[in-house]
Amino acid sequence: MANPLTPDVLVDPVELTRTLVDIESVSRDEKVIADCVEDAMRKTPHLSTERQGNTVMARTQLGREQRIVLAGHLDTVPLNDNFPSTVVDDLIYGCGTADMKSGVALALHLAATLPDPRYDITYLFYESEEIDSQFNGLHLAGQDRPDWLRADFAVLLEPTYGVVEAGCQGTMTATVRTHGRRAHTARAWRGVNAIHAAGEVLRRLEDYQPRRVTIDGCNYREGLSAVRISGGVAGNVVPDECEIDVNLRFAPDRSEEQALAHLREVFKGFDLEVTDSAPGALPGLDAPAARDFLLAVGEEPAAKLGWTDVARFAALGIPALNYGPGDPRLAHAQDEHVEIGKIRDGAATLHRWLAADE
Amino acid sequence: MANPLTPDVLVDPVELTRTLVDIESVSRDEKVIADCVEDAMRKTPHLSTERQGNTVMARTQLGREQRIVLAGHLDTVPLNDNFPSTVVDDLIYGCGTADMKSGVALALHLAATLPDPRYDITYLFYESEEIDSQFNGLHLAGQDRPDWLRADFAVLLEPTYGVVEAGCQGTMTATVRTHGRRAHTARAWRGVNAIHAAGEVLRRLEDYQPRRVTIDGCNYREGLSAVRISGGVAGNVVPDECEIDVNLRFAPDRSEEQALAHLREVFKGFDLEVTDSAPGALPGLDAPAARDFLLAVGEEPAAKLGWTDVARFAALGIPALNYGPGDPRLAHAQDEHVEIGKIRDGAATLHRWLAADE
Repeated sequence: MANPLTPDVLVDPVELTRTLVDIESVSRDEKVIADCVEDAMRKTPHLSTERQGNTVMARTQLGREQRIVLAGHLDTVPLNDNFPSTVVDDLIYGCGTADMKSGVALALHLAATLPDPRYDITYLFYESEEIDSQFNGLHLAGQDRPDWLRADFAVLLEPTYGVVEAGCQGTMTATVRTHGRRAHTARAWRGVNAIHAAGEVLRRLEDYQPRRVTIDGCNYREGLSAVRISGGVAGNVVPDECEIDVNLRFAPDRSEEQALAHLREVFKGFDLEVTDSAPGALPGLDAPAARDFLLAVGEEPAAKLGWTDVARFAALGIPALNYGPGDPRLAHAQDEHVEIGKIRDGAATLHRWLAADE
Repeated sequence: MANPLTPDVLVDPVELTRTLVDIESVSRDEKVIADCVEDAMRKTPHLSTERQGNTVMARTQLGREQRIVLAGHLDTVPLNDNFPSTVVDDLIYGCGTADMKSGVALALHLAATLPDPRYDITYLFYESEEIDSQFNGLHLAGQDRPDWLRADFAVLLEPTYGVVEAGCQGTMTATVRTHGRRAHTARAWRGVNAIHAAGEVLRRLEDYQPRRVTIDGCNYREGLSAVRISGGVAGNVVPDECEIDVNLRFAPDRSEEQALAHLREVFKGFDLEVTDSAPGALPGLDAPAARDFLLAVGEEPAAKLGWTDVARFAALGIPALNYGPGDPRLAHAQDEHVEIGKIRDGAATLHRWLAADE
């Protein structure tokens, strides 16, 4: 197959978005798109390009004082009658248009067309972000090629609808267990019903007042939700155990240890076991490259509430934020689409930020 | 195989218990034991005997004014390293000793040895009581051979440890559902958490004050228990539905309609759907044969709280109660056993009741 990522296409971020969308790349099936991206990068003389699995890294080596990363994942969620792309007026419809091939297009467009940026730039196009973390190309690169991630500042081109979303909240899931004593329901008073005892856990969840906190001008709103409950032995048995999984989203001024202490406080008196946890990421907007970026965007940043791969950079001490043309509410939706105007705006903003001073 | 239910065995209810226990008869595998029982009954000249499936009916036809039923099931729960029987001092150990081959032995012993009882007697030895109701031999006989069940009074020889347990409570299971609206847990305030909403259902269960009622001198104690709870979509999704199965055990002065109205009152404002229901049975202790029976036993009756096949007789307007030598707490236990003294007491009591006046 001839590589559809031709110089004519690379020069136009809108055409490039459509072309990327029309290369099917559901998670674990990214070989073709990675081949195309790798080929286009290797043909760009001012970049040195490497590959691991279906993750492609291309970078300038201009000896600038600062290095930034522009990163995006190549995979999409499964197709849903939304392939290939279609265009209606100012909208490109199709799987991955918002999440996040329009963002990848911005990075790829810059990589091909900006030989002399103000900072050294590392472009990361990675595999399998939409599935289990063990397959995530950024996670794997962090393990095997730590120099690929090394930078003073990173921008993930995840959909934010053109707003800077800074940092991200942490997430912690824990199982709260109540205990009782089995008995036949015909003699229920001989037992202790663990499901009834879970009422107190749900009461505390209902009464919970989530904290709001402002960090670097970003407003974070925490949350604590039951995401699963299960209990029961048989239709005629008073149950002796009930489990409630709770998910805490915590602002990045709390560490995981502090988040756990908070959960233990909320559910004092109950068994609690953490099953999953990921730290948040502070917005880090005082880094010089971040300040320049905010100036180029010219709008106030917002807090990122969901967990994203920016936390992988934060864990390495690298300030990182999300900025992309897609609308995050359309991610994974059947009618996923992106506004052509947002793609053009994003490309102009990134050029303004990254082009060398004249 | 020679029938082990010989005249020598039939004359001794203790020996007969052991012999019945040593004929393996897990539910759906009752052919051998039914063959033995049918053969023994057909050899008893004062009885007329019929069979359907693995259910055997044998009855006197003496033209008495009253007819009673003595009934017991031939099947057991699966063996559990407790076959064949063993004897330790006054105890016979083995699968089915309490539930309910010691009770069956009393009926079989009387059938073989009492040619001239005070009432006409129908003996029912039936299959598959321990499994789904559709296989229950008493249920099937009620459908296909209603005359087998016709009587003025019935005694089920289920384990009661020598106490008369009268009537039985009804049981009703319903699913209570709470509803919400899905959202990402990172933006939990955009959703409505159906598991949190279930807190109110559990609160009402915790606060529930079960009714106690005395009928014919029997104390019934009702109960309302959550027996299953489930809800949850994914670890990062505010769930939009939660289900709680509740089981109501209701005294036999309530009809099923009244029990349902009661549940609707308790869970007012919530979706409620009945998934399973069986009516209770009034004790019916004022029937003349029941009064004579209580005199022969010489002890106060107790309320039956669990649901048993007596309700099948009650549904036909036939007063029925449970009375058997086994300890109901040992039913289905690995160390199931029966006291030899309780078997002898039970046989003596039934003889006292049923022997014709001299």
